[in-house]
Amino acid sequence: MSLLFKNLRVHQIFGANTDVGKTILTAALARASAALRNEVFYLKPISTGAMQDADDEHIKRYCGAFKNRVHTECLYRFHAPVSPHLAAQLAAGDESHKIVSDSTFINTVSSYVQRCASRVTGPAHMYVETAGGVHSPTLSGTTQLECYRPLFLPTILIGDSRLGGISATISAYESLLLRGYIVDAILLFRDEYYRNYEYLTPYFAERGVDLTAIDAPPPVNVDLAQNAASTESYYQSLDMRSVLGTLDARHGQRLAELDSMPRRSLDAFWWPFVQHGLVRSEKDVTIIDSASSDFFSVYKARDATSSLEPQFDGSASWWTQAVGHAHPALTLAAARASGRYGHVMFPQATHAPALQLAESLLHDGPGKGWASRVFFSDDGSTGMEVALKMALRAFTVREGLEGADRKALGVLGLRGSYHGDTIGAMDACMEEGVYTCEWHNAKGYWFDPPTVSIQQGHPVITLPPALTAVAAPADCDIPSDSISWVYDVPARLDTPLAEVYRTYITQTLHSLENAGGPRLAALVLEPLVMGAGGMLFVDPLFQRVLVDVVRAHDTASPSTSEAAAWRGLPVIFDEVFVGLYRLGMQSTIPLLGATPDISVHAKILTGGLVPLAATLASDSIFRAFYGGEKAQALLHGHSYTAHAVGCEVANEALRLLERENRSEAWTIARAQWGAAAGSSGAVWSLWDQQFVQSVSRLDTVAEVMALGTVLVIKVQDTQAGYVSQSAQTLLESLKDSGTGSGSSAALSLFSVHFRTLGNVAYFMTSLNTAPETIRAVEDKIWMALQK
Amino acid sequence: MSLLFKNLRVHQIFGANTDVGKTILTAALARASAALRNEVFYLKPISTGAMQDADDEHIKRYCGAFKNRVHTECLYRFHAPVSPHLAAQLAAGDESHKIVSDSTFINTVSSYVQRCASRVTGPAHMYVETAGGVHSPTLSGTTQLECYRPLFLPTILIGDSRLGGISATISAYESLLLRGYIVDAILLFRDEYYRNYEYLTPYFAERGVDLTAIDAPPPVNVDLAQNAASTESYYQSLDMRSVLGTLDARHGQRLAELDSMPRRSLDAFWWPFVQHGLVRSEKDVTIIDSASSDFFSVYKARDATSSLEPQFDGSASWWTQAVGHAHPALTLAAARASGRYGHVMFPQATHAPALQLAESLLHDGPGKGWASRVFFSDDGSTGMEVALKMALRAFTVREGLEGADRKALGVLGLRGSYHGDTIGAMDACMEEGVYTCEWHNAKGYWFDPPTVSIQQGHPVITLPPALTAVAAPADCDIPSDSISWVYDVPARLDTPLAEVYRTYITQTLHSLENAGGPRLAALVLEPLVMGAGGMLFVDPLFQRVLVDVVRAHDTASPSTSEAAAWRGLPVIFDEVFVGLYRLGMQSTIPLLGATPDISVHAKILTGGLVPLAATLASDSIFRAFYGGEKAQALLHGHSYTAHAVGCEVANEALRLLERENRSEAWTIARAQWGAAAGSSGAVWSLWDQQFVQSVSRLDTVAEVMALGTVLVIKVQDTQAGYVSQSAQTLLESLKDSGTGSGSSAALSLFSVHFRTLGNVAYFMTSLNTAPETIRAVEDKIWMALQK
Repeated sequence: MSLLFKNLRVHQIFGANTDVGKTILTAALARASAALRNEVFYLKPISTGAMQDADDEHIKRYCGAFKNRVHTECLYRFHAPVSPHLAAQLAAGDESHKIVSDSTFINTVSSYVQRCASRVTGPAHMYVETAGGVHSPTLSGTTQLECYRPLFLPTILIGDSRLGGISATISAYESLLLRGYIVDAILLFRDEYYRNYEYLTPYFAERGVDLTAIDAPPPVNVDLAQNAASTESYYQSLDMRSVLGTLDARHGQRLAELDSMPRRSLDAFWWPFVQHGLVRSEKDVTIIDSASSDFFSVYKARDATSSLEPQFDGSASWWTQAVGHAHPALTLAAARASGRYGHVMFPQATHAPALQLAESLLHDGPGKGWASRVFFSDDGSTGMEVALKMALRAFTVREGLEGADRKALGVLGLRGSYHGDTIGAMDACMEEGVYTCEWHNAKGYWFDPPTVSIQQGHPVITLPPALTAVAAPADCDIPSDSISWVYDVPARLDTPLAEVYRTYITQTLHSLENAGGPRLAALVLEPLVMGAGGMLFVDPLFQRVLVDVVRAHDTASPSTSEAAAWRGLPVIFDEVFVGLYRLGMQSTIPLLGATPDISVHAKILTGGLVPLAATLASDSIFRAFYGGEKAQALLHGHSYTAHAVGCEVANEALRLLERENRSEAWTIARAQWGAAAGSSGAVWSLWDQQFVQSVSRLDTVAEVMALGTVLVIKVQDTQAGYVSQSAQTLLESLKDSGTGSGSSAALSLFSVHFRTLGNVAYFMTSLNTAPETIRAVEDKIWMALQK
Repeated sequence: MSLLFKNLRVHQIFGANTDVGKTILTAALARASAALRNEVFYLKPISTGAMQDADDEHIKRYCGAFKNRVHTECLYRFHAPVSPHLAAQLAAGDESHKIVSDSTFINTVSSYVQRCASRVTGPAHMYVETAGGVHSPTLSGTTQLECYRPLFLPTILIGDSRLGGISATISAYESLLLRGYIVDAILLFRDEYYRNYEYLTPYFAERGVDLTAIDAPPPVNVDLAQNAASTESYYQSLDMRSVLGTLDARHGQRLAELDSMPRRSLDAFWWPFVQHGLVRSEKDVTIIDSASSDFFSVYKARDATSSLEPQFDGSASWWTQAVGHAHPALTLAAARASGRYGHVMFPQATHAPALQLAESLLHDGPGKGWASRVFFSDDGSTGMEVALKMALRAFTVREGLEGADRKALGVLGLRGSYHGDTIGAMDACMEEGVYTCEWHNAKGYWFDPPTVSIQQGHPVITLPPALTAVAAPADCDIPSDSISWVYDVPARLDTPLAEVYRTYITQTLHSLENAGGPRLAALVLEPLVMGAGGMLFVDPLFQRVLVDVVRAHDTASPSTSEAAAWRGLPVIFDEVFVGLYRLGMQSTIPLLGATPDISVHAKILTGGLVPLAATLASDSIFRAFYGGEKAQALLHGHSYTAHAVGCEVANEALRLLERENRSEAWTIARAQWGAAAGSSGAVWSLWDQQFVQSVSRLDTVAEVMALGTVLVIKVQDTQAGYVSQSAQTLLESLKDSGTGSGSSAALSLFSVHFRTLGNVAYFMTSLNTAPETIRAVEDKIWMALQK
């Protein structure tokens, strides 16, 4: 949606306040642009007040000797001399649905700008003049800074030269920065009494922004002819060439910078999980100029059309996005905490953002009903290292292990699990395929789990070889073909399959005890979905039975066996990927009907803005470290533990997540999947159920699954696993924006960023991705799969 | 410096612009407060313009029937009707030094508020009315929002009810948030034409702020008597009780919240590195209400005086602070990046903040001259895990190791080193004392290193037992008692001690090869200072010789031995603590005269705001992972890799660091220590050299060292090590604010937060801590050591 043209330099003019001279200075710019032989476009998207006073009329009147080069346009005109939102309300009267929506408005502005760009033959300048101050409301009532943000036009701020104008100019500038706008220049009148320009010039120079003071216009003359003459003579007296030079230079620098970024990035970065030897050329580098809601704005140099292309963030930026990129509420939360605290020391200290977050997680969040403590760290991997240290210590303390016995412990888990890339987190996972490295020493035993998927339109439970040998074929039958039934764990606990699982797990654990492997000290699970391991949807019944069997096998002495103490093994739920509504539910715990002793949360925790992780623990785990000696404590910490910015952003994110949980879009999606809100077995997705089933019937597709924001498509491929390129190859065309044939042509003009795990392609939305956007993505996936 | 009183509720009144009715609405508040039987204080810190128009005069005139309860004060009065900074300039004329500084100004305001608070007997309200808009300049020219920030008074924002006022009000609010201010209420006139209040009420309700529209005053009547009557009657018509109720409630809630925080924190947090069993009571919890520059504002409930106390952040918040808490430039950088990108996917992508940071680190930063690649992660520990994976793989690739041989590798390091708390980082360190846990399996060999300190006023090199046995006593002599000589590594390379080190290291490595221990695959060092291991200042000559010996012992085949390839072992410098000017130098590399193959940077990297780490690598290391197969790549990553907020904040921080490096304060400190700027052996500190030497002569002190911002005091104690409490006990009195006897009484009214490592106490400043603050801290340390 963002616009950037080679030949057409576009600037959006914002005012530090109303009546600061936006139109006069824009006229001066337009005149000067025309005088320098540029084609000039002046756009006033919304004008309110009498026609003869309209800003575009003023531009027409005073655009100077080269007026044939100056084109003016106003898209929405209202005669009431009030704010656009009031004017729009007045005009709409009782029919408030007639008020133009933000997306229609922005599409209209965007189309106009693109039409102009397609017309220009030589260098051209465009000035888009806003109304009032930076945050003045648009037609719908959204403030200008937020409404125009998707276009991401570079800006010129017109400062306020009057008494109080220093403050007004700085505050307006800060509001622009909070929305990420580029501020290429600040202009204001040279008022010699208040001399704001004297103060503001060094102030903004220090911040890297050019400020230019321009002579103020003459006082208004009541004689119209004389007024016209003095105004014309004023314009003639101005020399705007240096300002134009700055604006041209900034435009050129931005293009040159974007052009140079792929080469420089290839030279300077060592990307995570990337084989640089396979990055063939600069074209393989995604240049992200900005991002907003679900879209990256990606640079692809073009001559005639915009060089910025919307790209749907189909991996939710590695599973972090919850409310879309650059959400103003998260930015303000970050700013608020940074302004109040910066980062402050955490051990034995407290601050409001951390305390509020801890209490939310414990009392209203995934820790509800079982967790008593929150330990903060920086990412899922460190959060898991903390969880493992907690679990292993709790085990050794209860079992009275010392020395080498403490080192030789292992974990129980599932094959395909992934808990992060630090060595401790890796050691809790199998060494398999490419998932290994020099110091990775996998410690434990991992069950090959049964999985759930949709194949040929039907839900299917697939057993691993060890279980097919012992289960009857009918054990995997799914009543009424219902995926919801599969996730109704309590109802399935006394099915024959549950008994098969129970027996198999019990026998396996028994033989492990006799086999002389590492002593198992913790059960570690990614509930419902194993993400990085290949987006495997594990049969939840298997995980529940596993927890139950492990806990039933408790050898604790009576003194430690009070109701709240951990039993059998400490159980860790790694909810880093699956938690906080990624799968449509706040936590997987109610669905599984089993609480962990430790859980880990990250990614969505900050709504997708900054790193932060929380490890939750039960009181029973905490007690293993509690005592009179420092050496017994959990001696683990990171410098930025519980950093205020992360905690405050997380607090805001949690509020926004709950709002999505109650949103109309979610209610509709739940209804479509036949899932009642709040029901623990509620399986539903933001992805369309019909679409999911249709995809599962394609010949190229082996199976599909969708839960919450996640859609997984496993491609038919004999060479499965991480190194397979089949999913990437099959869906390659999604990387082109194409023309699309979806319901809305404008909407479908975007490409789709997606990630694959070998023969598995997955797509992930934010929690608040608009349904029409998801439909458009579905259309694109459908078309790509037909090719 | 922040103020909060039980009985005196203080609010600071900010205007969204000038002339929005600040004084009128403040008068209305003051009247209402008085009418409700409160004692009322009205403070106008700065007044400009004619006396008869002064705001305090207006308050006096219209404070109603209970005027004996209303006290007004103006602290700085100027007659020119212009902005305070211009008025102050005019008044000072040529003698610009007479312009009141920010600290004097704030101390004057603070003293006045404290005097009022000490006088009140019952409930009382105070209103501090600012001038102009939120960012209008104060006497010195600093904008009000920044100048008043240390007082951290809760605020009332007076909105703008005029055309353009929606934007002005929102922008002013955002500027308040960017400095962390509490906004308890927004008031504005009920203008029925523009109806801004209709728009703004739900807007701010959504953001948790109460907005109240108040009837506008009558038009000014030219007849003075009639004007007075109509004004008085206007005030009588207003009902401000609900607003007062809100303000009282907010004040009460804040106190109640602060009172409840220790208990709730003890119930919800699991603190890092804290033995909860030793946290005896709520009093042991530091309640951080806010922070600014080098001080936490800490809550300690008091009846008569302010319940907020400044506490010097003497650990630089776990070694992260570089430019003080809540630095506005870092806040704006975070806001800018959040507003433009949020967080965006990094693998095979690029964005400006990450690219700029990578290039700065490579070309102008610690990677200058040797590094070719930057790998981003989240903290020092993950950065070290990445470094270790790089080094170990580079080694196995060159040596052609496979299978079990790859798993059994070890590192070479120094005893006392610490690289973080994730298991991989721990495995690169010795298991010693409390530094261990269940899965910690230390892999390698660690030399017991010689150290440097100041003892009894003299620099001393202390050899470990293994070296005292082979060195001659004179080998440790230090010419001219010069600590600078100790750090002049090139000059010492052909001293007898260097030869002792060389022989010892060579022989040790030789015997290790024959001893059947793990095969060594990397050399891992914290250059100059081993931080968490006990603030050990290692003899830099030993580290240099160690690198030289390891590299000389190169077995590489000729094909890999080009100049740029790593030799002997890949060398990792962990500069997480010591780098980026913590020790007064950008990097330790020039001083040691040896470049690493991999280096790790974090902590100061973001100036002390949010987590971010960078691992730098040479091209030769990068090539070990380069190829045609994904499996060969460095398959490591964290979700928020290269998050835009962290990168942009780091870019801003690096700019600020370089500014400190060129600052007058640093020039003076360097000169005092006899260190020339830019000289590689430059050893100097922000701590006073005389003070350091004096402390080293105290009976209770074993040794002292200072480098850059770091001061380390090792206490005489027979029971050394991490579990010792001796340093904590000796310096306990620093935790009280006391009255102080330093040069400035006001300045010394603070307590000092500090951390100990057993018998070692350390103190750390930001890079820009004011010299007078450091002097005051030195005074406090000196007094504490006398007790």
